[in-house]
Amino acid sequence: MRLLARRSFIASVAAALALAVAPARAQTPDPLPSWNEGPAKARIVAFVRAVTEPGGKDFVPPADRIATFDNDGTLWAEQPMYFQLIFALDRVKALAPKHPEWKTKEPFASLLKGDVSKALAGGEKAIAEIVMATHAGMTTEEFEKIVKDWIATAKHPKSGRLYTEMVYQPMLELLAYLRANGFKTFIVSGGGIEFMRPWTEKVYGVPPEQVVGSSIKTKYEMRNGKPVLVRLPAIDFIDDKTGKPVGINSHIGRRPIAAFGNSDGDRQMLEWTQGGGGARLMMLVHHDDAVREWAYGPKSSIGTFSDSLMAEANKQGWTVISMKDDWKTIFPAPR
Amino acid sequence: MRLLARRSFIASVAAALALAVAPARAQTPDPLPSWNEGPAKARIVAFVRAVTEPGGKDFVPPADRIATFDNDGTLWAEQPMYFQLIFALDRVKALAPKHPEWKTKEPFASLLKGDVSKALAGGEKAIAEIVMATHAGMTTEEFEKIVKDWIATAKHPKSGRLYTEMVYQPMLELLAYLRANGFKTFIVSGGGIEFMRPWTEKVYGVPPEQVVGSSIKTKYEMRNGKPVLVRLPAIDFIDDKTGKPVGINSHIGRRPIAAFGNSDGDRQMLEWTQGGGGARLMMLVHHDDAVREWAYGPKSSIGTFSDSLMAEANKQGWTVISMKDDWKTIFPAPR
Repeated sequence: MRLLARRSFIASVAAALALAVAPARAQTPDPLPSWNEGPAKARIVAFVRAVTEPGGKDFVPPADRIATFDNDGTLWAEQPMYFQLIFALDRVKALAPKHPEWKTKEPFASLLKGDVSKALAGGEKAIAEIVMATHAGMTTEEFEKIVKDWIATAKHPKSGRLYTEMVYQPMLELLAYLRANGFKTFIVSGGGIEFMRPWTEKVYGVPPEQVVGSSIKTKYEMRNGKPVLVRLPAIDFIDDKTGKPVGINSHIGRRPIAAFGNSDGDRQMLEWTQGGGGARLMMLVHHDDAVREWAYGPKSSIGTFSDSLMAEANKQGWTVISMKDDWKTIFPAPR
Repeated sequence: MRLLARRSFIASVAAALALAVAPARAQTPDPLPSWNEGPAKARIVAFVRAVTEPGGKDFVPPADRIATFDNDGTLWAEQPMYFQLIFALDRVKALAPKHPEWKTKEPFASLLKGDVSKALAGGEKAIAEIVMATHAGMTTEEFEKIVKDWIATAKHPKSGRLYTEMVYQPMLELLAYLRANGFKTFIVSGGGIEFMRPWTEKVYGVPPEQVVGSSIKTKYEMRNGKPVLVRLPAIDFIDDKTGKPVGINSHIGRRPIAAFGNSDGDRQMLEWTQGGGGARLMMLVHHDDAVREWAYGPKSSIGTFSDSLMAEANKQGWTVISMKDDWKTIFPAPR
């Protein structure tokens, strides 16, 4: 890794000299300015060069340059809890006047009293009830509007910023860098597919048809002569862990050559990516920056990065990105 | 319709005159040479002009130019039976030596004796048994290879041509014409998604990630340290009728502005497309050419084009494409 960093430094000096003697040549700006010079950045650049060099042994035709990104904890933050869960809690409050029965019914009663911990003490069953009460029972168009309104106004409890400003600047640069090199970038997240699609194009440059996520079932029907898709309170697909390769196969139909995650939920996506043979890039964002973001790992219930995942990363040669050391900045500058 | 055709004629004359006085200007070749001049062709051209004209009242940004195409009977032929069913029957024969029990078990016994009608007399249950016996029980990579081998060698029983040569030349031109105008073209078919993906890019220019179809469930597992997706004998999704808008929403996440089908199975896809408002193009291929292809409609069990679909097309202003009158050629010239 040191060798790579040194080579990169020498290349930079050489490039600077070349510019000095050839002033007419346009300077290529660094496509990853928020990444510190180091092994993670060097590996990304080396991989992209390898797969895009015509005639090179690792060349990959543009059509097969598929890159997949987890969302929570990889492209945007996920503390103090998944942002989609905060959305759901906000929806419970907004819908409470229409549901007087929630005053005495868990997990809603505790939520409405402001006791989130007690509400979530019911575990997955409680979360499922909250999700179904807030994500189902309306048309896809109605839900899209609810998400758009929330994402445009709701603020993160710690930073006070919009959730779409809690995205990682280095990853925005990475997405753009890959696309500039002929990659098609996909999101493959455990989050709700319809919760992400209304804003991923604007925020990440990833269009709706390149978003893979968890979903509930929908049903087609005519309402007053107008066709609608109604969101039903029934799980359709969970895009997490072993579900990620399944979702990738279902939605993309090709195997990625690069995959980016941050937790145990991404392990199978990285395995599946690596299993394809040829040049591959697997990376895991490690939340180790308590000052600028959060530091959490094996013991966190959100975005668990277990010791066994770390062991597999080391064994398989996956790159662990240290937010503390590899990232010059974390979040985009306030506008 | 006549008015449109006349306008188109006048436009052609005007264009010819313009060329005569400006010989330096490059002549634009007709992008739809296999379409006869007539209402169907005129409508396509007028729609594409309307949605691509910058500043025009019907302008649609490129990202929203989504066009969806049914496959069987819309992009390729579907007689004497769905080609995927012929594939399944061929697989039964190939697999028979490994299944001695099929000699006495329906629907396999009849199939192996060459009596397809008797085998299929068991209806959907028989077809499901044939599909599961031939489409499940292997990895996705293994199935892809089986499909690729079959599609490269199997010949249509009537024409003796490869199945990928039983595609409609006018529709190939339409796909290319739409893409040249910034459209993203998708297949949305009742056929199996994994049966289509291995060849749609080469044949139609539609990449795997833009194919939506019916599917069976898959399961992720490690085999000898290598990750695989195993195809299970369980239906995951049927992409037909009301399933088409559901599949479109799940895979594309935007509503099409143009949709092309040929049968009752496409009705809801066209309704859903039209329901979005703004300029929309809905078209149905009508198989009315017994000489050059097949003539079938309301009474056919394959590609049923019911009287009620015809009535809805007339009522809603959907264009019915007559293969006999609107298409100059049906199939690509032999190579």
